[in-house]
Amino acid sequence: MLLSGITEGNPTVQRRAMAKAITLLESTRADHRLQADELLTALLPHTGRALRLGISGVPGVGKSTFIEALGLYLIEQGHRVAVLAIDPSSTVSGGSILGDKTRMERLSVHERAYIRPSPSSGTLGGVAEKTREAMLVCEAAGYDIVIVETVGVGQSETAVHGMTDIFCLLQLPNAGDELQAIKKGVMELADLVVINKADLEPLAATRAQLQIQSSLRLLGHHGNPEHDPHDDRQWQPTVVQLSALQGQGVAEFWQQVSRFRQLQTDNGRFAAKRQRQAQSWMWERIEAGLRQRFRDHPAVKAQLDHTTEQVLQGQLPASTAARQLLELFN
Amino acid sequence: MLLSGITEGNPTVQRRAMAKAITLLESTRADHRLQADELLTALLPHTGRALRLGISGVPGVGKSTFIEALGLYLIEQGHRVAVLAIDPSSTVSGGSILGDKTRMERLSVHERAYIRPSPSSGTLGGVAEKTREAMLVCEAAGYDIVIVETVGVGQSETAVHGMTDIFCLLQLPNAGDELQAIKKGVMELADLVVINKADLEPLAATRAQLQIQSSLRLLGHHGNPEHDPHDDRQWQPTVVQLSALQGQGVAEFWQQVSRFRQLQTDNGRFAAKRQRQAQSWMWERIEAGLRQRFRDHPAVKAQLDHTTEQVLQGQLPASTAARQLLELFN
Repeated sequence: MLLSGITEGNPTVQRRAMAKAITLLESTRADHRLQADELLTALLPHTGRALRLGISGVPGVGKSTFIEALGLYLIEQGHRVAVLAIDPSSTVSGGSILGDKTRMERLSVHERAYIRPSPSSGTLGGVAEKTREAMLVCEAAGYDIVIVETVGVGQSETAVHGMTDIFCLLQLPNAGDELQAIKKGVMELADLVVINKADLEPLAATRAQLQIQSSLRLLGHHGNPEHDPHDDRQWQPTVVQLSALQGQGVAEFWQQVSRFRQLQTDNGRFAAKRQRQAQSWMWERIEAGLRQRFRDHPAVKAQLDHTTEQVLQGQLPASTAARQLLELFN
Repeated sequence: MLLSGITEGNPTVQRRAMAKAITLLESTRADHRLQADELLTALLPHTGRALRLGISGVPGVGKSTFIEALGLYLIEQGHRVAVLAIDPSSTVSGGSILGDKTRMERLSVHERAYIRPSPSSGTLGGVAEKTREAMLVCEAAGYDIVIVETVGVGQSETAVHGMTDIFCLLQLPNAGDELQAIKKGVMELADLVVINKADLEPLAATRAQLQIQSSLRLLGHHGNPEHDPHDDRQWQPTVVQLSALQGQGVAEFWQQVSRFRQLQTDNGRFAAKRQRQAQSWMWERIEAGLRQRFRDHPAVKAQLDHTTEQVLQGQLPASTAARQLLELFN
């Protein structure tokens, strides 16, 4: 019934079924996990048709204002919009971006929008997994645009990049930020760079746009050796200016997103990326599971601290220590 | 006898014992591995006193010429110098940097130098492990400077950074290269940046030096939140000019390295870094071992291709697939 509630229910039933499903997915009880896996597998044929849009940027860049403006624009165009978030800091603070619904006042109350804060416990890998799964629930419920937001700290951008079709980086009209983004390896993840608050400093915004565009060319795209910067059948990372607060540039932004989708669908990269993402996701969860099992293994657990200490004191070579511990794991 | 040959033998005996030990370490036979672990553990008390120097740079930057000039300079100062290499491409080509001994004609024949090419099979993780272990053999044999060279491709710089005390990046007097190094995240690994071939284009070299110095300041160092760029009791990443071919700047380079060692020893970071490295190394080998065992497990092996295909075809959620495979692994 959860399944049909999600895929066929009327708005009220659907919203309730979605919340229930996501709560089930986030539960750590083993029997819940089995039910959740069954549900996910049943939902899967109803998923995959949405566009998955990742949005990142440092605090203060105006992500909420941008997402609200974009979401309302998309609803006006007939879309249904889900907004999810990955906030690694929420696991520490218990707080969460998007937790405060007032941040997107108009979007959050719209019946064609669904907003869900970041899961607030677990490792980044665990939080990312819950968000990926919540995304599938939203897609099965007919939301055809899924936005995944993250703050520009830690490894969360890589996680969002790994679950979305197009990754957008919000920047302020300030060239110093550019170097930070390049350094962190976030710039090269970006398919679209948005200079927000461009109305406040038009000259600086244009300078930043030109500079980032030239950096993107120099960097090549995505460290992907297959990427040819001169092939116009491939998407070339692009920089746009925007003022979310004034509502300026949102339509142009969406035009670029649509052009991206068309181009990458035609050249086959859209589907290929999703396959790569699914496979990486599987291996990431396998490796997390293996690490967990290793640490929980009684014989390993009994020995790990002592062996680690021997390694730190220089009494045991690290590779020998690893082999000894692996032998205990049986 | 292998142990005493390494730690006490005359030059000829020692060289033979080192070669034999490293061959033993590189063997994949289980009984050899056990002997190798025993040997390593016995060698360990004789290791750790050398300075471990990582050197990276793209092909053509002049690494061999630089290492030869540096090695000969250090021998003149009374040191014994070992040169190891990590070349991830050697696992594909079978060839290897340093394989061609003529690359360091004068250093390679010197009795106070020991040069060993990159292990030529296995994953990068495996190659790095062999090199780390060979480093211990060299140290036990009394080589007090160990240089680990790598080409600037792939993840090999991270591996070399993870096993050395000071990481030096060679650059050409060419500003475009700088951005590449920043992008790849190599620049922020660097404790010392060397502008080589500075004699050819003195103006460009000085421009590159200033530019890189300013980028290093902007980047902060090592993404390490503890690093304070204003604390002069901490090492601040530094850029030097050099002409390895002309032998210019080598003494100044070594002065910087010695200053680094002194400063980081006094503030405790030298020892702390080695402890971190040993612990990371242990976990890296544990994780590699877990992955290998997972893939080799009969029930997993029988199912893996089919499950992967289901994930790629969108018939099975990736996280569910991971859980199913982990259940088979018992």
